[in-house]
Amino acid sequence: MSSDEELDEYPDGTVKLRNPNIELMDQDILYHLALGSESHDLVSMFGDVKFVCMGGTPKRMEQFAYYIMEEIGHKLPAGTMLQDISQYSYRYSMYKVGPVLSISHGMGIPSVGILLHEVIKLMYHAKVRDPIFFRIGTCGGIGLEGGTVVITEDAVDGMMQPFLELSVLGKLVKRPAKLDKKLARELRALSEPDDPYETVTGKTMCTYDFYEGQGRLDGAFCDFTESDKMQYLNRIHKAGVVNIEMESLSFAALTHHAGIKSAVICVTLMDRLKGDQVLAPKEVLDEWQQRPCSLVSRYIKRYLSMKGHLSLDGHCGSMCVKSPRRFKLVQQESENYD
Amino acid sequence: MSSDEELDEYPDGTVKLRNPNIELMDQDILYHLALGSESHDLVSMFGDVKFVCMGGTPKRMEQFAYYIMEEIGHKLPAGTMLQDISQYSYRYSMYKVGPVLSISHGMGIPSVGILLHEVIKLMYHAKVRDPIFFRIGTCGGIGLEGGTVVITEDAVDGMMQPFLELSVLGKLVKRPAKLDKKLARELRALSEPDDPYETVTGKTMCTYDFYEGQGRLDGAFCDFTESDKMQYLNRIHKAGVVNIEMESLSFAALTHHAGIKSAVICVTLMDRLKGDQVLAPKEVLDEWQQRPCSLVSRYIKRYLSMKGHLSLDGHCGSMCVKSPRRFKLVQQESENYD
Repeated sequence: MSSDEELDEYPDGTVKLRNPNIELMDQDILYHLALGSESHDLVSMFGDVKFVCMGGTPKRMEQFAYYIMEEIGHKLPAGTMLQDISQYSYRYSMYKVGPVLSISHGMGIPSVGILLHEVIKLMYHAKVRDPIFFRIGTCGGIGLEGGTVVITEDAVDGMMQPFLELSVLGKLVKRPAKLDKKLARELRALSEPDDPYETVTGKTMCTYDFYEGQGRLDGAFCDFTESDKMQYLNRIHKAGVVNIEMESLSFAALTHHAGIKSAVICVTLMDRLKGDQVLAPKEVLDEWQQRPCSLVSRYIKRYLSMKGHLSLDGHCGSMCVKSPRRFKLVQQESENYD
Repeated sequence: MSSDEELDEYPDGTVKLRNPNIELMDQDILYHLALGSESHDLVSMFGDVKFVCMGGTPKRMEQFAYYIMEEIGHKLPAGTMLQDISQYSYRYSMYKVGPVLSISHGMGIPSVGILLHEVIKLMYHAKVRDPIFFRIGTCGGIGLEGGTVVITEDAVDGMMQPFLELSVLGKLVKRPAKLDKKLARELRALSEPDDPYETVTGKTMCTYDFYEGQGRLDGAFCDFTESDKMQYLNRIHKAGVVNIEMESLSFAALTHHAGIKSAVICVTLMDRLKGDQVLAPKEVLDEWQQRPCSLVSRYIKRYLSMKGHLSLDGHCGSMCVKSPRRFKLVQQESENYD
């Protein structure tokens, strides 16, 4: 851990909220998660969380929840099944499997940003210590064949700037998009010689647009030529960019600002130096998307077995209602908000 | 129609793709919609579309589809129900009710941007003429009480700039975020004296973040005081901003660039000059969210009845109810029979 990161954390490892207002509020409603600090007993529901895994779609994160349950040998009590904890938000899906949260973040920086604000507050309210956040996703590769796993070393925006720029009260604020170097190295070391694919580390470009913003020729608009595109992709490739996606900048910047260790692991769906469209058949794509999940699973299993926690049951997974009236209110409000 | 917009369109009214590459491609896969130009007969599936309505969540847009079906008297063939056309994308939901598409766009500029690129291409492939796009949403009001309907006149970003700025091949490109003034006036004129709420027009601020980006005090991070926040909100209010949301800038810029008439209609969930949290009960919020839908429905119904198309489609009803009482009885009996 770098000294920079140590400064971001409380001595006991709980998550630091850089907002003095939250402590003073009667209750804190996490609107987009359909949870609240006074409606739900967040400590007993989420106090045992160690890993927060995020990915694009509800479907993929539900699959990841079942996959990691199998991998870590987590058993649900008889007569229970996984439930989407945030189902009444109609926005994100959240599953909990013992120490692992599996949450969908939608597409793009604003969508993952709203989620991170609320999940960071959730970690704070639940008094979680030293959580580790992973983003598991897909991306376009640059000079990497489809199916390659990329662990992000640094995230940059479409102008190659290594920070998230956002306007706050009319002023531009820059947040360094830093990821944990040690965690990236540990993940890289968990790739196995038998893996039938490469696992690499490198710079990830994060854009606000999928078509023009990533130099694609096949959007509704395109003012540049194929040769302009290739020149650009080759230029960023020489500058160390190995893949392009749409969430890493916010993911890195907000977790770093909160003093949370995090990593971004994506599988490439195509080599952008060879084309723009996803052409691999569904079965192949499904297998490719399993690869980042598998790497994260190895990390989680290694961690849990080192702690002697592998396959032990955690807290009860169901809703622990503190105040039924407030519980109802939070559900209702979340249903309506966006 | 302004001369500017006329220049954006083909003489026959079909949607202009500002991308010469699409015509030259063997097939165009609309990846995030789970549709393709050669896998699906897009002309026969979507050629009759006139209105494209977008909103945040899949749930709300499914509800809107059923609502507009009732409103325009559209009948489904016996033994059929609405299907989510994009269900296999696991990203957006899309419902079609005669001439109306109802599509969820997720949260934020990148998410609505990906969708717009693909829906604009869909309009092109389907040879749709002069489609009209609506965004129906919720927002925070500035100096407007909760439940007020806002029709956006101009969209601005968090720095009050009236354009979408995006990096394309490493260069910043600015796209004017223009909405159709005439359409906004026509919508405004469809508010009724009996409506138990105000319908106003004004400037909409569109941000990349929900918490710090909108001056909220209750995110995971907050470096400003309540007085800084109020000063800022009062300043933008004086500059004409009446509401804040997260998609209008991209919605306006991309539809304008494609020569498509569009409007953004949102209901305010609270007055941000009075607080950051949503405090109205669920029934009230539900009724508020119906208001923009109702305004768009009035527009669509007026258009269809002027064209003589209202409720007179050749389809026979999915459930032709002769006696509601007997219909109910039969349903109940069926439920109990085994």
